[in-house]
Parts: sequence; structure tokens; C-alpha cells
Amino acid sequence: MKDFKQVYLDNNATTALAPEVIDEMLPFFREHYGNPSSTYSFGSRVRDMLEKARALVAASINALPEEIIFTSCGTESDNTAIYSALEAYPGRRHIITTVVEHPAVLNFCRQMETRGYSVTYLKVDAHGKLDMESFADALGNDTAIVSIMYANNETGIVFPIEDIGRLIDSRNCPGGRILFHTDAVQAVGKVAVDVKKLNVDMLSLSGHKLHAPKGVGALYVRKGTPFYPYLIGGHQENGRRSGTENAASIAGLGKACELAGASLNEEAAYLRQLRDKLETAVISSCPGAIVNGRGTERLPNTSSISFEYIDGEAILMFLDSNGIYAASGSACSSGSGKPSHVLEAMSIPSSAIHGSIRFSLSRYNDASDIERLINVLPDVIKKLREISPLSGSFKCAH
Amino acid sequence: MKDFKQVYLDNNATTALAPEVIDEMLPFFREHYGNPSSTYSFGSRVRDMLEKARALVAASINALPEEIIFTSCGTESDNTAIYSALEAYPGRRHIITTVVEHPAVLNFCRQMETRGYSVTYLKVDAHGKLDMESFADALGNDTAIVSIMYANNETGIVFPIEDIGRLIDSRNCPGGRILFHTDAVQAVGKVAVDVKKLNVDMLSLSGHKLHAPKGVGALYVRKGTPFYPYLIGGHQENGRRSGTENAASIAGLGKACELAGASLNEEAAYLRQLRDKLETAVISSCPGAIVNGRGTERLPNTSSISFEYIDGEAILMFLDSNGIYAASGSACSSGSGKPSHVLEAMSIPSSAIHGSIRFSLSRYNDASDIERLINVLPDVIKKLREISPLSGSFKCAH
Repeated sequence: MKDFKQVYLDNNATTALAPEVIDEMLPFFREHYGNPSSTYSFGSRVRDMLEKARALVAASINALPEEIIFTSCGTESDNTAIYSALEAYPGRRHIITTVVEHPAVLNFCRQMETRGYSVTYLKVDAHGKLDMESFADALGNDTAIVSIMYANNETGIVFPIEDIGRLIDSRNCPGGRILFHTDAVQAVGKVAVDVKKLNVDMLSLSGHKLHAPKGVGALYVRKGTPFYPYLIGGHQENGRRSGTENAASIAGLGKACELAGASLNEEAAYLRQLRDKLETAVISSCPGAIVNGRGTERLPNTSSISFEYIDGEAILMFLDSNGIYAASGSACSSGSGKPSHVLEAMSIPSSAIHGSIRFSLSRYNDASDIERLINVLPDVIKKLREISPLSGSFKCAH
Repeated sequence: MKDFKQVYLDNNATTALAPEVIDEMLPFFREHYGNPSSTYSFGSRVRDMLEKARALVAASINALPEEIIFTSCGTESDNTAIYSALEAYPGRRHIITTVVEHPAVLNFCRQMETRGYSVTYLKVDAHGKLDMESFADALGNDTAIVSIMYANNETGIVFPIEDIGRLIDSRNCPGGRILFHTDAVQAVGKVAVDVKKLNVDMLSLSGHKLHAPKGVGALYVRKGTPFYPYLIGGHQENGRRSGTENAASIAGLGKACELAGASLNEEAAYLRQLRDKLETAVISSCPGAIVNGRGTERLPNTSSISFEYIDGEAILMFLDSNGIYAASGSACSSGSGKPSHVLEAMSIPSSAIHGSIRFSLSRYNDASDIERLINVLPDVIKKLREISPLSGSFKCAH
């Protein structure tokens, strides 16, 4: 067996738990296992922790504690937000979203189409930028909700949420403001997210994208926004999300938000220079490598790179055999064999989409990881180009 | 501060995690944090664990692994089951359930009433027994689903699920079998649950009721049963439940099911003798104490006892101050101040409902816990009776 440190470059799929997060969780698996709904002291200790965690999550996006609903994941938050808005406006039958959303939004909207809703899927240009003119045209008195992601999971491209919020605000819809939801699962913890500035009504976030565990998320719902619960039963989360609270994981999510907030700008700067180093090194060592959306505002940690005429899955396999982990397309659709809907939307040729790799970094990566990648990747690309019947004239410099 | 071992008698609200369960989870918080959807080896290790856990959960209820869908809690499992059945039979508009269900079923059904569904809420008698005659009468060609709990969370009363399954089976409904769901959240891990014998199409279970963590559950869906997912997005759980899998907690749930299965009969016998000891001791030391549903088949660990003319919350407070934890009504509705809908359905007078305490045991309780309770409880009851304006003529023997 090869002896090497593993290099994890797939932090948009999931992240390592911060050791501080694990420490925060363990007491709620061991001694403080009470049900927070219980009236006795053994339960109220857990209830106190929930409120502490709620305040920490709220603070990380400049929200009020009572505006945070804990959920089981980003998908639940996304589904809940759209469902709630449609319940709030039973008379409206129109949804606006984009073609590059996460499946948790996209497939929920498709389902709503089968129930008589009409959905506008906004397009993006070759740089991944949203067609704002079409957006303005699409807004109508029949629009119940706009659901547009903060940042894309595959390319890291950031959408102008603040501008979108302003545009929605400028529309005076009879019967009430068009609700605005953003799936910020990939943004929270990586860039400063301020719900007050963004002017969103709802925002989804997910624990395991920011060094908290899988299986916990949150939905921000602006105070005063009409809300209809998706999971129905007991009184938990003030009647807004039933089911016994996932106490330990919520403690972990609170801690993760606190950690992210404490060093957000420094960490973003660190990740950006590391990511730029990665891109420069890949481009200079692998002719024909193209960074998708490079000229557009992106998350500091994400790089989507196309290696034309090569099978991305083959690249991943070679990297894997060297202990380096990255993704082709989004983690959520990997294994499906379908080309990335995000890169397709950017009109990237299919020969390049199939050879696209996403590298996504976290605070636990450093320059040695990039070196390890660059020691391996150019050779991999060269070998795969040589055996590719479609490879054309690219040669790797390495 | 008083110096005593705490006595946890509220295991139907939530349970202590088994140490073996925590051990099983920790590697998936620490080293194996990969996304199970990832194609590389680091993700497939987590995927392998998910399948191992799925097989363990399946084995504990005599199901096939592919019949298990992991969810975030019992509430999600319950909501999903009913939703799916209604989607499966869009032409049918009738649901049958009982008045004593958990709010996750009851409130979901009430919501469905606002959407044009009719719901039959079956009654129970003074012993908590289901009115089977009304049930047979209620089944019709318009019935999409029957959702009846396996065992009640407040009283422990077990419903004749096998008989109900047989009755449903005997109905030849044009267009397909009426679907049968049972909320077995309180039963799995406490009594032998065999989906083949029960003849159910769907069954809900929850991790934190059997020494696994909060925030994980499962829904059994019989092979061949039409199924429509409630959480919509990525391809996880074979497209049946989207959202990144709660890996560590699923590992814990698998282990908890394995542990429960390994000593089910011995544990049930142990709990039954301990529970009977508790009831005998309480009755003999507190005149007027009545065990609710005592003559009916019950879970071996559960005891609902009414102390007439006393405020149950006051009893709990006194117990709490002695480090003894129990519940009044169901944990999910505690704090609401409303009298238990389960005891009301059994026509128990409100003077007794308000003084009802649920004691629920687990493998981690022993005879010393019962002794501790009996050292404290009769005095508490006596004192509270003395100050109660309604107390009548009861006197505690202690």
C-alpha cells in the first residue's frame, strides 16, 4: 500500500468536522441525552444548548435567533422554503428559479410543475452570469416565490443576491411581497452572508458544508414572513418543524458557525490565494485546461477546471489511487453518469464537461496539498490524453 | 447540592445512547467524513457502512435491506408514509387513523382534512382497546391509507396490528390494496416486530427511542409498494429520500438495532418484571393510584399511573428536585399544558388525567431505581394531596 497523506479537495461535497465541533457534540451523546421538550432539569439543559446554538447560527448571518429553524439538511430547508411560500400565496401559481440550482430546488420545482405551477428557469451566460433582464421580465403578480442560490456548488459562481432582493422589493405586488429564498448552503461559512443586506425572506444552510456534521441544517425565515411547516407533528421549533431536535448535531452546527464567523475574512483570503495557486499551477502544467467561470465572482475555495477530451471519472480514479479526492460534477449527481447541468447551462462543450473536475478547498488544506496534486495531475492528464481517441493536439508540459 | 445518582424513567421520551452506539458513530465524525455519494474510495467506505447499517435495521424487523429508507426522525417517516400513500392513490380521498396517534400522524391527518380528505379517527375504549368493529365499517373503496400505531407512547398499549393487517388484506379494493402504515416508533427495540407477520406496507421507527441518537429514523416500505418521496432533490436513498445521508447517526442506528435484536426477549422480560415491581410498589404505597390500561397488552417498559386530584406537573417537579425524571402526558406535548389526548380518549376523568405520570424504563434501569422512586414518591403524593383543594379522602400509606 502506498504511504501518503490523503489530500481532500472535495469540500463542497462535504467537510471534515472541526475538532472543536466534535468536542461540542460529545456531551450531548454522553451525559446530556435528555429530550429538550421535557420539563425537568435534565431536559432543560439540552433546551438551553439549543437556544445557545440558535443564537450562534443567527449571529453568523446577522439574523435574530427566533428567525432560525433547525432542519435535517439543506434539502429539507430548500423544500420547506418553497412549499411554505406556495402555501402562503395559494392564489399565485408562478415560481422563478435558475437552471443551475441544486437538485433540492430544481427537482422540487419540477414536481410543482406537475401540480399546475408554472416555473421560470432563468438561464446563465457562458460566464455563469444570471440573465437579469429576463429575471425582471419574469416577475409578475402571479409570482409566489423566487428561489435563487447564493453560490453554485460546482463552479463557485456567486449570484448578485442583493441586487435580486432589491429588484423584488421594487415590485409592488398586490396581496403581498414576492417571497425571496436563497439556497446559501455553499456560501455560509465561506463568505460574509448578511440577511439584512441581502433582503431575503428565507435562506437555507447546511451543517456538513461548514465543518459541522451531516444531518443538520437550518432555514432562516425573516420575522414577519408567513410560514407553513413542511414536517408536521409536535410543537418543536415553535411549531415550525416537528420531530425531536437533533441535539448534538445542533450543538455542532452552532459551534461551526461560531468558528466560521471568528475568522471569516482571513480564511476567505487564505482559501483564495490557495485556490489561485492551484489554478495557476494546473493551467501552466496542463495545456488546454480551462477554469470555468474564472472571470466571474466566485467563492474563494472553489475551482471547476475542464480538461477537454478526457473522461473526468478516469481523472478522479487516478487521483484517488494517489490519495487525492476531488469531484466531477456535483457530488449530489455523481455516480449518475449524467453531464453536469450547471456546465451545460454555461454552454460549455460536452467534450469539456465530461472532462471537468471540481476542486474545493477548506481551512484544513495547505500548500503541500497543491504540491501533491501538481506532482500527480499533469502526468494523469498526459496519460489519459494519449489513450483518448478524441484528444486532438493537446500535450501536457510536465 | 444533593448528592445522588440520577434516575431516568423517561425512556419513551428519549433514551441514553448505548456506549456501543457512540463507539460505532465516532469514526464517521473523525476519520471517515467522506460524502457517501462520492465515487472515490474515501466516500465508498461510508457507502459500505450505510449498507451495513441498512441490513442491520432491516434484520431487526425481518425486512429486506432495500425496504429501508433512512430519514431524519419518526415524524419525517410518518409524514412521508401518509403523503406517499395519498400520492399513490390520487383518486382516493379517505384516511383511517386513531384518536390516540402521535401528533406526527394526527396533525398530518388534520392538515389533509383541510385539503379535502376525509379522515376517520377510530376511538378506543376505557381499556385503550381499539374499536375493531368501527374499523371494519370504515374501510371503503375510497380509503387510501390506514395509519395505526403499533404501541402508544403514553400508555404503552399495543394495538393488534396483525389482525388489522389481515382485515385490510381481506378487502379487495378495486385499483389496489389499501396501504397500511404503522408508527412503530415506541415498539421497535422493545418487542419483536416482524413486518412479514404484521402484513404492513410501511412502518416508522426512530433511533433515539432505542439508544441511538436523536435526528435519525427509518421508514420501511414493503417491496412493490408504490412510493413517492417527501424530501425531493438528489438521488440519495435510491431517489426515495434526498439530502446527504446522516452517516454517523445511521451507523449508530444500525448498531442500536443490532443490540436490541441480540437480547430482545431477555430484555423485554427484564423490563416487564421491573415495571411490574414499580407498579406494585406505587399502588401499595399510594392509595388511589391507578395504572392506566393495566389489563390490556402493553409494552413491557411503560407505565402510566394516575394520581387523582393532584397536579402531575407538581409531582414531576418534586421528583426532579430528587434527581428522578419522568413525564406527564407525552414528551412531545409536554409544556403545552393541554391534557393528554390519549388519556382523554380512554375516558379517564380529567381529575385523574391531570395527575397522570408516565414512567418508562430501559435496559439501563435496575431495581435500585425503583427503590429510589419509592423512597420519594409516596411522600410527594401525600404532601401534594394535603395542599390540594380537591384531594378528597385519599391518604398515602407511607
